[in-house]
Amino acid sequence: MNEELEIKFEQLSQLFTDRKFQILREQISEIEPADIAIFIEERLDEKERIVFFRLLPKEFASDVFIEFDSDTQENLINSLTDKELKAVIDDMFLDDTVDVIDEMPANVVKRILKNSTPQDRKQINELLEYSDDSAGSLMTTEYVSFNAKNTVSEAFDKIRKTGPDKETIYTCYVTDSKKHLLGVVSVKDLLLAKPDDIVGEIMDDNVISAETFEDKEHVAMKFSKYGFIALPVVDKEGCLVGIVTVDDAVDVIQEEATEDVQKMAAILPTEKPYLKQSTWSIWKARIPWLLILMLSATFTSMILSSYEEALMIISSGVLYTFVPMLMGTAGNAGGQSSATVIRAIALDEVKFKDIFRVIWKELKASLLLALSVGVICFAKLMLIDRLFNPNVSWGVAGVVSLVLVVAIIIAKFMGCVLPLLAKKCRLDPAVVASPFITTIVDALSLIIYCALAIAFVPLL
Amino acid sequence: MNEELEIKFEQLSQLFTDRKFQILREQISEIEPADIAIFIEERLDEKERIVFFRLLPKEFASDVFIEFDSDTQENLINSLTDKELKAVIDDMFLDDTVDVIDEMPANVVKRILKNSTPQDRKQINELLEYSDDSAGSLMTTEYVSFNAKNTVSEAFDKIRKTGPDKETIYTCYVTDSKKHLLGVVSVKDLLLAKPDDIVGEIMDDNVISAETFEDKEHVAMKFSKYGFIALPVVDKEGCLVGIVTVDDAVDVIQEEATEDVQKMAAILPTEKPYLKQSTWSIWKARIPWLLILMLSATFTSMILSSYEEALMIISSGVLYTFVPMLMGTAGNAGGQSSATVIRAIALDEVKFKDIFRVIWKELKASLLLALSVGVICFAKLMLIDRLFNPNVSWGVAGVVSLVLVVAIIIAKFMGCVLPLLAKKCRLDPAVVASPFITTIVDALSLIIYCALAIAFVPLL
Repeated sequence: MNEELEIKFEQLSQLFTDRKFQILREQISEIEPADIAIFIEERLDEKERIVFFRLLPKEFASDVFIEFDSDTQENLINSLTDKELKAVIDDMFLDDTVDVIDEMPANVVKRILKNSTPQDRKQINELLEYSDDSAGSLMTTEYVSFNAKNTVSEAFDKIRKTGPDKETIYTCYVTDSKKHLLGVVSVKDLLLAKPDDIVGEIMDDNVISAETFEDKEHVAMKFSKYGFIALPVVDKEGCLVGIVTVDDAVDVIQEEATEDVQKMAAILPTEKPYLKQSTWSIWKARIPWLLILMLSATFTSMILSSYEEALMIISSGVLYTFVPMLMGTAGNAGGQSSATVIRAIALDEVKFKDIFRVIWKELKASLLLALSVGVICFAKLMLIDRLFNPNVSWGVAGVVSLVLVVAIIIAKFMGCVLPLLAKKCRLDPAVVASPFITTIVDALSLIIYCALAIAFVPLL
Repeated sequence: MNEELEIKFEQLSQLFTDRKFQILREQISEIEPADIAIFIEERLDEKERIVFFRLLPKEFASDVFIEFDSDTQENLINSLTDKELKAVIDDMFLDDTVDVIDEMPANVVKRILKNSTPQDRKQINELLEYSDDSAGSLMTTEYVSFNAKNTVSEAFDKIRKTGPDKETIYTCYVTDSKKHLLGVVSVKDLLLAKPDDIVGEIMDDNVISAETFEDKEHVAMKFSKYGFIALPVVDKEGCLVGIVTVDDAVDVIQEEATEDVQKMAAILPTEKPYLKQSTWSIWKARIPWLLILMLSATFTSMILSSYEEALMIISSGVLYTFVPMLMGTAGNAGGQSSATVIRAIALDEVKFKDIFRVIWKELKASLLLALSVGVICFAKLMLIDRLFNPNVSWGVAGVVSLVLVVAIIIAKFMGCVLPLLAKKCRLDPAVVASPFITTIVDALSLIIYCALAIAFVPLL
């Protein structure tokens, strides 16, 4: 939060406490709805929130409302009269109404639907049908469309008449009588055309569109690739059913990046901002993978147990002391590759068909990396570790370094292949990759280490 | 890549091989510039690229050009005549020209500047002055501005006259004679107003703007918070110097998310798409942290060495076998917290001043998590591990589980505090946090483990 906003918040607090509501209302209209929502949620208690919300200028209330946390939304809805609720809902865009409804309990949903116009209710119900991850769930049905035979001045008349209720007027769509999407025309095109030009002639008929069931992440990528400000959504028959606007695409991009970070860190994804998560919900998101990974470490204990006696006799146990370094380095190496590939998949830079290119690339890189790390590890063992522990012989240093080289190569191979395989099996690359890589690489490198140590160290 | 695009690419290839250039040009104009750039880079060799690029319809060439990789751009520039180059540059928006220049060697930069108009050259040089991470480097100077006294119809005249060269016409700015930013007016406002309304009266004078030196990540967050399609950039005197458009903000959001993922995975951030990175550049990005982390594991080896004899005598070495599980679990626990906090910092949800709220939140969660994991670990040790290794006594299981509880709490504390401290010291939370957490937590939990084991296991 910057200082300017901080000062404004202080003023709002003061005016609210002093009950100077007239001046307060004037102040409010000079602040962005997103910031007012932050003020209400962070600075006011539940009762004050309702009083303050009722003070909001009419045209502001719904813009502020959609910025709230779902808990705040629910509390507010329960405190509003039907008439107040209706005013808020009427001013909201349909995609936002659907987002609110998605998080509400059944009785609140009923109240919202009851207070919508019959036409809105029908469209809301249609939008609610789409799966949460689809373009359909992201879109709004409030767009501007023309007939191809309209003139430019007729188009402007329609924009002036219907524009105020539309989420964007800057990209308009041309459809036939059956709503088939024929083309797209921007307000810029319209402004630069002559009033009696025909819309069908100036429109662009190569339209990039999304399908209702398309993954919303995929839709967001189209925005980032092509730089659009809106994207039409069509059904299977090619009929225009809605549009997605860039602000929603930005939200998806942020959410997906957060989710990927969470999954890579072995956390179940949550949408709530960190400071709003309860201790209980943090526990629920983190405990599953923490336990799974802890339990899967049983393998490493079992492997170490079974080689225990042998390892202790050879070089009086010194080999044990390098196990954490070996497993840690292999884990880091695998993590580098999996994070790179998972992110490249998320950005649509890499597909399953690229698997051999990816393996080849990682193989070359991992050879170079493994050899560099192996050589330096060998030097470190002979120059530093030997000072502290005379049991670090040439043989021990050699076996440790060799296993490190092999473990890095295996880890990087797993790290690049597993996310792609997961993607192919329609599993989530980020969830599947990291934990499995750790477990497999840990077990494999330990077995190789123990086997090599027992075979070679006594001979050297 | 979807199938439709794949088919189009096949057609383009065929037409190009058959030298049916007329039909090819028609086909090209039906494909998005971003896709044509992909086609040229992925399907054509260096010589073909130049031939193909020359075939592009004039209005298309610069849109395709800016989508290329910098290597492709450099090769193309070196093959174009001055006249061709001038045509491409003239059609580019200034912020894109600056992006291209940023990646070019000095001789190519000279040629680009030589082939720009004097006015453009002056503005390009100004934009080049801004640091790479600033709003200034992101903005373009091509925006539409009005005088507050203009009427709406005068405003439209200006849009029609100057609009074609502007990056966006949908958000326009109102400035005084000294270019001070007075307000913002959208084309929607203008369309819904009467022709003789005065711009100064319908404009919104509460403008959210960025300053030239503001961090570009911060600027991008404003887009995601407020849902803008353009944001004005002002200098220290409050004069309008440029605008940032939402497509550039989307790119920044994607890049920053990728960078954070890379840093958390102990990779130096790179901007190039994965498949375009050379083996050498992958090596350079990954080797530093891989080595640093490997070398820092010297501590763990030293700690284990110094407790070696004691650990081997107690319970005949079984304590060693749980070291990987302890360190792995503590590492996972710390990683969960640091990833969560790093992402929350990136999304501006958490600031340094929230440090005590964060610590309190993590402390509660870590107690719950640590106890759950500890209890289950104890059960696992007694029920499963004991089957394989009779040396797993009540005492061993108790110490291992207790240390696990302590290690998880320490790891989560470090995981939430270090990123915030790094942020406070103006270091990068993502870079600093993960590697240090691993090293510190590994060392601490090992020392506690060894100390507790030696003190208590023999007594039990």
